[in-house]
Amino acid sequence: MVIDVRDLYDKLDEYMEKKVTLQGWIRNHRKQKEFGFIDFNDGTYFKSVQVVYDDKLSQFDEIQKLRIGSAIEVIGNVISSPAKGQDFEIQVEEINLLGDCPEDYPIQPKRHTREFLREQAYLRPRTNLYSAIFRVRSVAAYAIHKYFQQNKYVYFHAPLITASDCEGAGEMFQVTTLDLERVAKSGAVDYSKDFFGKKAALTVSGQLQAETFALAYKRTYTFGPTFRAENSNTKTHANEFWMIEPEMTFTDLEGDMDVMEDMLKFVVKYVLDNCKEEMTFFDSFVEKGLIDKLTKLVNSKFIRIDHEEVIKILKEAPVKWEFMPEYGEDIAREHEKYITEYFDGPVFIKNWPKDIKAFYMKQNDDGKTVAAVDLEVPGAGELMGGSQREENYEKLVNRMNELGMETEGLDWYLNLRKYGGCVHSGFGMGFERLLIYLTGVENIRDVIPYPRTPGNCEF
Amino acid sequence: MVIDVRDLYDKLDEYMEKKVTLQGWIRNHRKQKEFGFIDFNDGTYFKSVQVVYDDKLSQFDEIQKLRIGSAIEVIGNVISSPAKGQDFEIQVEEINLLGDCPEDYPIQPKRHTREFLREQAYLRPRTNLYSAIFRVRSVAAYAIHKYFQQNKYVYFHAPLITASDCEGAGEMFQVTTLDLERVAKSGAVDYSKDFFGKKAALTVSGQLQAETFALAYKRTYTFGPTFRAENSNTKTHANEFWMIEPEMTFTDLEGDMDVMEDMLKFVVKYVLDNCKEEMTFFDSFVEKGLIDKLTKLVNSKFIRIDHEEVIKILKEAPVKWEFMPEYGEDIAREHEKYITEYFDGPVFIKNWPKDIKAFYMKQNDDGKTVAAVDLEVPGAGELMGGSQREENYEKLVNRMNELGMETEGLDWYLNLRKYGGCVHSGFGMGFERLLIYLTGVENIRDVIPYPRTPGNCEF
Repeated sequence: MVIDVRDLYDKLDEYMEKKVTLQGWIRNHRKQKEFGFIDFNDGTYFKSVQVVYDDKLSQFDEIQKLRIGSAIEVIGNVISSPAKGQDFEIQVEEINLLGDCPEDYPIQPKRHTREFLREQAYLRPRTNLYSAIFRVRSVAAYAIHKYFQQNKYVYFHAPLITASDCEGAGEMFQVTTLDLERVAKSGAVDYSKDFFGKKAALTVSGQLQAETFALAYKRTYTFGPTFRAENSNTKTHANEFWMIEPEMTFTDLEGDMDVMEDMLKFVVKYVLDNCKEEMTFFDSFVEKGLIDKLTKLVNSKFIRIDHEEVIKILKEAPVKWEFMPEYGEDIAREHEKYITEYFDGPVFIKNWPKDIKAFYMKQNDDGKTVAAVDLEVPGAGELMGGSQREENYEKLVNRMNELGMETEGLDWYLNLRKYGGCVHSGFGMGFERLLIYLTGVENIRDVIPYPRTPGNCEF
Repeated sequence: MVIDVRDLYDKLDEYMEKKVTLQGWIRNHRKQKEFGFIDFNDGTYFKSVQVVYDDKLSQFDEIQKLRIGSAIEVIGNVISSPAKGQDFEIQVEEINLLGDCPEDYPIQPKRHTREFLREQAYLRPRTNLYSAIFRVRSVAAYAIHKYFQQNKYVYFHAPLITASDCEGAGEMFQVTTLDLERVAKSGAVDYSKDFFGKKAALTVSGQLQAETFALAYKRTYTFGPTFRAENSNTKTHANEFWMIEPEMTFTDLEGDMDVMEDMLKFVVKYVLDNCKEEMTFFDSFVEKGLIDKLTKLVNSKFIRIDHEEVIKILKEAPVKWEFMPEYGEDIAREHEKYITEYFDGPVFIKNWPKDIKAFYMKQNDDGKTVAAVDLEVPGAGELMGGSQREENYEKLVNRMNELGMETEGLDWYLNLRKYGGCVHSGFGMGFERLLIYLTGVENIRDVIPYPRTPGNCEF
């Protein structure tokens, strides 16, 4: 029976001194005259296994010809290893070639730049760095589902193709089955002939629809892709990314922050516990102190402070700002950084000026602010944003009118306020932003298997 | 402290004779002269709670005015109930109105047609049927993640926007940021000016990209949305739906079937165990015998039989077919039905004629068939389809040439066969097809929160 490399590490005692069969790939092959070493990895575990063979094997010459990247089956004995840094190795009895690989295989056992590996995106999960990143991506995704399901949230699949533009903002990708060549020839666009009989686009958020589930199930969450057609070529922007958007009824802004804090701690702890090898690798080679940073977060109590108070602290700070902090205005990266350092931990900044926040946020009694919150974490800035939602029908409609938004097409959203509508809150977290924080990797292109950015739609 | 209705049912002993606070909605309100009954549901559990009040309360007149659909807070004592079919009820001490609801609320305590409720899609999760459906959707989604994560698969987020057309088939939605009005005026389409510098579309499958992860991690799965622009208005077609696509390296067609069978049984059992109330409801009101059907599946051993053998059985069957079964051809619904009845259980039909299957499937030595498999289940027909993937570079390229497919843009996919490419297999399952099977609900529009079908892109 074939076992996983992961099984071998997990239950080494059971396999020690036994014969095992493994199937995987050659990461490296060091040949000497009378013996050789193969770094063998089957993708089930971050670490490789050292496979050792010598010239007593009738296959010796054949094995020595095996190239890096090839798929092989190894039959051999698990023995304790004399080599430093490993508890065991495999003494070969037999190796079978399962899939060959040519000399010019792009992934060689040397340092490749991340830029090069982005071009070889379909091969990069075979390297240590990306193997670790995408396993953490998988485990973190599961941690998110686990958290919400354990807490009895209903998972909601928001529609991706939409005819309504959530925040009234955001550049959207249009979705069409119109034949553009024909449109060009005909001289006119007839949306009644388009697939849905009207103009449609890819969603920028599932929040509004998620609210309909919150008002039926009390607690719901989305976890799915969202799209922004921003022509922005920065390290933190991708045009297709995954979002988590929970919504809770009978929950105000304080309750919202409770969930944000609890969820984040759960997910970070789950990844630390379940990706030990990967996190140690990131800590050593990507961001020194990463594990300490994350452990500290798990054990901290997040600060909760009003936006107005934050501005006051910033104004009084002995710092020469590039952007002057102002009441009623947004804060800059340098301010975020200062505030998390000032409190030496994660900070919820709440009750933001209404004019810089979205239409659906709960209007506070002061007439100036909304019950919105951003979570700022040390070393990463804003990680999540949430708000209590305006549950008052008239206030919501008035706000939309003030902003010049059309209410047509959003009657269902407004009606939620009429039909047993009550206090509810929610938040959004960009999944890739979380991954950047968890891995220390800085570029969003490195935490998405096949990133879509302006001019880039490969694979 | 506010508790969930679900907590009350789960830990009734703990709460019996105690005072509790609940927040939720009024499903029904029956008023009598000296007392009244409220069917109270907070969405955390399928069942409602009976809330009882009488005219000894100073609030009596106020409470009697509460309308169906309103959000309320109930403070009261849990007492054992004299009513049939319920173990307990809540004796009111106080009720607070949290969100009012008008008389013309569309969801009244009477039978609404599914057609009507589709138009009120944003309110339908507040009804018994849809509350049950979408909770099962959530729990089944989690079961799928749980199965694959427990078995150490890496969850892979396939790209949704793509410049390559997976199966060379399938009508696709185009994704663009070109201004169509301008395209119409200019008389020409210039894709170099489009967002990605070329024509892009929504994916119809993440399989090809998932294979790149399988060849790095040994086992991977996708679970995400896919899109087909088919102009098909049937009960089983939606244009946006969710798919699960696992891929396993070092796994042949037999191993593929092992996973398909094991996964399906796990998910069905998980839903039976974790959605007892919902499944009982479906069994009573949607599909009689549903729970028996599913329990039988969990306990059965799936049959494995060649397509050729199936045709033989069909030809010998004492049935007057609408479509005559033929060697080398696809089978019809009536054939699928007959075969599952013939074997009285789920049937894997394998080794299909190559001309009716996809280009990437492993070509068998007979030169006529491919190592493909469809799973047919009693009462639902085809539930999943999979295949061993062609791992031979030349055979794959030749097949693409035979079919007149361009290899350009798929060089990375072909290269997987060069670089340690080896035996691997996978399958696909439409998530909504599974839900139709699990719930007995027949129309795909009833298992997707906000379905997208031709001409329909509401909410």
